[in-house]
Amino acid sequence: MRDYKILLNEVLERIKPSESERRILSNIIRKVMGRAERYLVKHNLDVDVKVEGSVAKDTWLSGDRDLDIFLRFPKSIGKNGLIKFGLEMAKFIAGENYVECYAEHPYIEAEIEGFKVDLVPCFKVNFPSEIASSVDRTPFHTEYVNLRLNGHLKNEVRLLKKFMKGIGVYGAEIKIRGFSGYLCELLTIFYKSFIDVLKGSLKWHPFSTIIDIEGYYAGFEDEALKMFNSPLIVVDPVDRKRNVAAALSLNNMCKFMSAAHIFLKNPSLEFFFPKPVQPLSRSEILEQIHERGSEFMFILTGCPKIHPDILWGQLYKSLEGIENLLRSFDFNIINSTVWSNEKDLVIFILELERLNLPTVKRHIGPPVYNLDDSERFLRKYLHSSKVLSGPSVKNDRWVVYVKRKHTSAIKLIRDDIFRARLGELVKSAFQERFEILVNEEIIDIYVKNPFFASFFTSHLHGRPGWLKL
Amino acid sequence: MRDYKILLNEVLERIKPSESERRILSNIIRKVMGRAERYLVKHNLDVDVKVEGSVAKDTWLSGDRDLDIFLRFPKSIGKNGLIKFGLEMAKFIAGENYVECYAEHPYIEAEIEGFKVDLVPCFKVNFPSEIASSVDRTPFHTEYVNLRLNGHLKNEVRLLKKFMKGIGVYGAEIKIRGFSGYLCELLTIFYKSFIDVLKGSLKWHPFSTIIDIEGYYAGFEDEALKMFNSPLIVVDPVDRKRNVAAALSLNNMCKFMSAAHIFLKNPSLEFFFPKPVQPLSRSEILEQIHERGSEFMFILTGCPKIHPDILWGQLYKSLEGIENLLRSFDFNIINSTVWSNEKDLVIFILELERLNLPTVKRHIGPPVYNLDDSERFLRKYLHSSKVLSGPSVKNDRWVVYVKRKHTSAIKLIRDDIFRARLGELVKSAFQERFEILVNEEIIDIYVKNPFFASFFTSHLHGRPGWLKL
Repeated sequence: MRDYKILLNEVLERIKPSESERRILSNIIRKVMGRAERYLVKHNLDVDVKVEGSVAKDTWLSGDRDLDIFLRFPKSIGKNGLIKFGLEMAKFIAGENYVECYAEHPYIEAEIEGFKVDLVPCFKVNFPSEIASSVDRTPFHTEYVNLRLNGHLKNEVRLLKKFMKGIGVYGAEIKIRGFSGYLCELLTIFYKSFIDVLKGSLKWHPFSTIIDIEGYYAGFEDEALKMFNSPLIVVDPVDRKRNVAAALSLNNMCKFMSAAHIFLKNPSLEFFFPKPVQPLSRSEILEQIHERGSEFMFILTGCPKIHPDILWGQLYKSLEGIENLLRSFDFNIINSTVWSNEKDLVIFILELERLNLPTVKRHIGPPVYNLDDSERFLRKYLHSSKVLSGPSVKNDRWVVYVKRKHTSAIKLIRDDIFRARLGELVKSAFQERFEILVNEEIIDIYVKNPFFASFFTSHLHGRPGWLKL
Repeated sequence: MRDYKILLNEVLERIKPSESERRILSNIIRKVMGRAERYLVKHNLDVDVKVEGSVAKDTWLSGDRDLDIFLRFPKSIGKNGLIKFGLEMAKFIAGENYVECYAEHPYIEAEIEGFKVDLVPCFKVNFPSEIASSVDRTPFHTEYVNLRLNGHLKNEVRLLKKFMKGIGVYGAEIKIRGFSGYLCELLTIFYKSFIDVLKGSLKWHPFSTIIDIEGYYAGFEDEALKMFNSPLIVVDPVDRKRNVAAALSLNNMCKFMSAAHIFLKNPSLEFFFPKPVQPLSRSEILEQIHERGSEFMFILTGCPKIHPDILWGQLYKSLEGIENLLRSFDFNIINSTVWSNEKDLVIFILELERLNLPTVKRHIGPPVYNLDDSERFLRKYLHSSKVLSGPSVKNDRWVVYVKRKHTSAIKLIRDDIFRARLGELVKSAFQERFEILVNEEIIDIYVKNPFFASFFTSHLHGRPGWLKL
């Protein structure tokens, strides 16, 4: 067996929070708690103010600047009371710089001394079964993890999180659809070390792996598989009906498995600290586009101003809709993705085998021995101006050669994009304006926008830096 | 129910042999028999000379100029004796104009007063079970048909044969792979009239229909289906192990079914007397090629000098081989066929979606959880100069974007045609010379060769003249 110790120690040296970092964080927490205390005294309220998230579990990484503070109100205050007093208290704590955000419930995202501090009002309940929304559940997660994650294991969680960040599968937000921090913690509790999580993942199989620490479904695995129906199922120890990995995509589950496989064969720092992508130069990118011989269609539009989770949900849905529209007219898509700066620009990228198809298209009809179907088919095509050849019989079926409705992918998108299944807000953006660029026509955008350039370069390159054998 | 009588009577008027035709044929038969008699007397041989084929069964069509004469030798003469004396006698009868042909056994094809007279030496056996080759069986077919086909039914056979000729499915030879004369006779015996054959065929289903006049497989239909495994099974009344429809292709079986279906809906003379194809003019054909927007590849080569059955067997096999080669490199074939004048020219016609493909090609690898396969895949592609992007993970699989080996169908055929599965003689023809023409480059050949022009016109047109609803 390989000894990864030296390498992992080197990683830990770089990702464990330093004493000075911890001190800075403690100061901020003290400040926030002080402000909370003052609010509570002033309003004579009984609210439990708690640090949550990776800070509460001591699984945060050096350099992280996130802090989650939960304001746990008694259930008796009611939903409206929670929103009113919760937000008021959160704003009081936040100070000057904050935005109001909406997940299941509203919360405040404040900026305090360089830290992003989420101030989340919720109900204080005694048992997970009494929760009213998912934020009420979070303190139980923290409690569970702190009970099971002793000193040494916290660093194993740090390694796992950093590994996942490095290979791009960390984060349960819609844009990523990866592994949440809590999921990393549970995996570490289950497998008992970072390396054993990697080794364990090599035995995973999409849609048939259940990790059930508390054994809620022991002997009923098949029922659990059917009930959750997810690529990976990790039963929540504090809520047996919940799959902690529900947000994880098949793609990211498998990306993690593949990276684990390669790391165990050929460990390197690159998994944890990937080199930033160097965008190809203007001439290099033009040469690559040319060399592939395929055709790129870039659809540019404005960016809806909404929470990133909603934005990316709509962008992915719309990308799928556009792909399906193109495929339904026989355009062969080699690869596709979508990029946005989350401000004012969205670019759908579609690499097609070709932008233009021949006019003629073979259409296979019913078997000749299905008499009713055959007559319907013949009545449709015998007098149709769309027909170029036939109908005739090929093997046991009718076949006819018709004119394609769309021979140009560009014209299809230009004329019929609203026939694609689009997210509502993306639809509105398209209605306002959209632009189609082809192949090297993207070059001005590429040169002007280094973030897009990095994204497109790594999309074209495809291979992750750590992929070495 | 529709009354087809007037129409069918009109057809019969035109296809029943006239008295003068019958007289001419009788004279020829008398002459042939006389020559045979002289030979037998001279050589003191005991040979049974019999008229066979459609003339013997009185199912021939007006205008036919074919006559089959069987020379039935005693089995005691042996195989070598049959070939020696059989051919000698046949040549004596043939006179000046004849060619020696080889099917299972050699025979003589003579030209006598405008008639093609096949003189076929065979053994005279008492029971079908004693036959040495298929020609020995023929007299039993004739006997069976003459026993079951009374006067009125002969004309029904004539209608069926003419119908099949008209729609292009008559003849068991390899070029056609259609219905033999004997098959038409058996169908008529079974269904009892031309119209009832058509109606009956609407209930046929490929690979699951058995017509078993003598009921040899009654109660054992499943075994018969498995044993014969043909689109249509018609058990030979004189040899239960033989499928009379063995040579019939699925395509022609279904062509017949479709024509039957349409005829019963909308009967017309055109089924029996199709209008000859008028080749499109030079400018029309160029316009059609252009309008389709697809790309035609014509592969021209010389024609092996062999019996048409062997030639067409090899041409069809080679066409399939060329198609498979093109498909294996992702070229999408819209339609294909092969033409030959059976003398000095063969033209393979392949209509492709496109002659050129983009350089980049997506290659899907193994699932990431198949560790050994994944390593093999990665070792193959991580250091390959063929790779343009990746490897990366897409859903649960590795994927890599590689350079295609062949982006040009023309270059593929030019460089690698001998990697296709070709008939041996076609391979030799290609080795001597072949030429690739693309799209309008065929026009000189088209203009010079009216037979090819008709063929290509009807190939492009596709729709049979009788197809009206």
